[in-house]
Amino acid sequence: MEIVFLGTSSAIPTNNRNHSALALKAFGEIILFDCGEGTQRQMTRARLSPMKIDRIFVTHFHGDHILGIPGLIQSMAFRGRRDTLEIYGPPGIQELLNSMKKLGYFALSFNIAVHEIKDGTVLEEDDFKISAQLMKHSVENYAYCIEEKRDPKFIKEKALKLGIKPGPAYGKLQSGLPVKIGNKIIKPEEVLGEKRRGRKLVYSGDTLACEEMVGFSKDADVLIHESTFNNSHKEKAFETGHSTAEMAADIAKKAGVKSLVLTHISTRYKDVKTLEMEALNVFEDSVVAEDLMRLEVEQHDD
Amino acid sequence: MEIVFLGTSSAIPTNNRNHSALALKAFGEIILFDCGEGTQRQMTRARLSPMKIDRIFVTHFHGDHILGIPGLIQSMAFRGRRDTLEIYGPPGIQELLNSMKKLGYFALSFNIAVHEIKDGTVLEEDDFKISAQLMKHSVENYAYCIEEKRDPKFIKEKALKLGIKPGPAYGKLQSGLPVKIGNKIIKPEEVLGEKRRGRKLVYSGDTLACEEMVGFSKDADVLIHESTFNNSHKEKAFETGHSTAEMAADIAKKAGVKSLVLTHISTRYKDVKTLEMEALNVFEDSVVAEDLMRLEVEQHDD
Repeated sequence: MEIVFLGTSSAIPTNNRNHSALALKAFGEIILFDCGEGTQRQMTRARLSPMKIDRIFVTHFHGDHILGIPGLIQSMAFRGRRDTLEIYGPPGIQELLNSMKKLGYFALSFNIAVHEIKDGTVLEEDDFKISAQLMKHSVENYAYCIEEKRDPKFIKEKALKLGIKPGPAYGKLQSGLPVKIGNKIIKPEEVLGEKRRGRKLVYSGDTLACEEMVGFSKDADVLIHESTFNNSHKEKAFETGHSTAEMAADIAKKAGVKSLVLTHISTRYKDVKTLEMEALNVFEDSVVAEDLMRLEVEQHDD
Repeated sequence: MEIVFLGTSSAIPTNNRNHSALALKAFGEIILFDCGEGTQRQMTRARLSPMKIDRIFVTHFHGDHILGIPGLIQSMAFRGRRDTLEIYGPPGIQELLNSMKKLGYFALSFNIAVHEIKDGTVLEEDDFKISAQLMKHSVENYAYCIEEKRDPKFIKEKALKLGIKPGPAYGKLQSGLPVKIGNKIIKPEEVLGEKRRGRKLVYSGDTLACEEMVGFSKDADVLIHESTFNNSHKEKAFETGHSTAEMAADIAKKAGVKSLVLTHISTRYKDVKTLEMEALNVFEDSVVAEDLMRLEVEQHDD
């Protein structure tokens, strides 16, 4: 499971920071969160194929989070994509996509399935689920939480004791199905251990740091939180519905997350040291993201 | 007068080449020709302020030439632009802009004046004019020609002979107005030389090399011509309404231009040497553009 920071600027891009976008390489696919202008090129730089994206999750409808979608779609079509592309976002996303489909001549070679989200689970698969929660920005902005589901551990000793030899039966039991050994039916719970904890990631989108985020990111492995400003522009954060690095660190501390990554950095900060220091003073495991930074999220032992 | 190549890729961007866009620094402004996705960031890299753009000329409605417009407009609005932005393009440009204005939440702080073009002069100013001509692409594509207008040379010796001393009268005569010296009216033609040749630039947009371009770019100082393919994909050029480097060089030769710059290079060519060689074999002053390349166009002596 790897997070690739494709764009870490706020409204205006800089030489070093492109508009917002995050790629999650996990569960055999690439899931995109937000897609600012130039995201397809950032993917090329990160050696990620846009063709491997099957799902895009949009936090809100500010240009710096969405204007890369038309180009991404058109490039997919140009390359002859056939697979359906699923796009999730706040109410209005269908209308937004309708306008995006009108931008110039191109033949859409695949289906786009658009999902208008609300608070709660927005996608549930066998091995993960994604939920959304409304936060506090100047426009409707949803944070996303990705939770991995893990199978319980297979205890080989127990299986051997029950006379089951290594082979296909192990896989069947692991996946929750019973097997017949001689005349005996072995139930999965006879060989499986406790339920195991999966990894949990939260991405804030744009928001003023708020209590809702504390609950939403509880015990997350990684909280990716916007921090548009440092403490010298705290008032501006309140005015515009954004966060400072310190505010984000405070959320991370209260939520008991393992690590905090700050992103969506204002162009005014050429040097992010102040920002990072302000976060580190509150929460030890803080880092400011850079474009094309890759973060491996390690599996839990338990 | 300087041309800045902001993007030189074709449909798909690469690590080194962004989507199509050209900036012309001349006549006290920055004029943009095409505006592919990511153009605003390329401008930052080239140290050109998007706020200094007052006019955008669009050749055609393929995504790689237009998808940077929404972001550029939104960033201008974010920075509080008040000046009108003039956008020129093929019929349908108004409808395109209408869709672009619907992409997410933003407050347009300035007026956008949209001009649907046809063959002929599309803009005439005191010091330059821009004309357009339909070329041969898979969709309606207009090439643009920028022609500088120059005042005739002021012949100081003649003025002195007529008893006019250096001062405001020189400026008045230079700008074509008569002056009164004592009881005598001096007409501009008495002190001005022959009409002087201004610089001429032509930008093809996307097109199959065609006779129309020969006439349109006659004697140009710089012809910026697409060359999506090299000779090994000549058939593809005909199929898709694009040009090879050799075809573009042939146009340059027939039109008697001073120099040829090749752009809109397919992603398939990691190394553009073949492309450049094929052009050089036909036309000596050929070069393949690179992103952020700057080209100073020198003034004529005559």
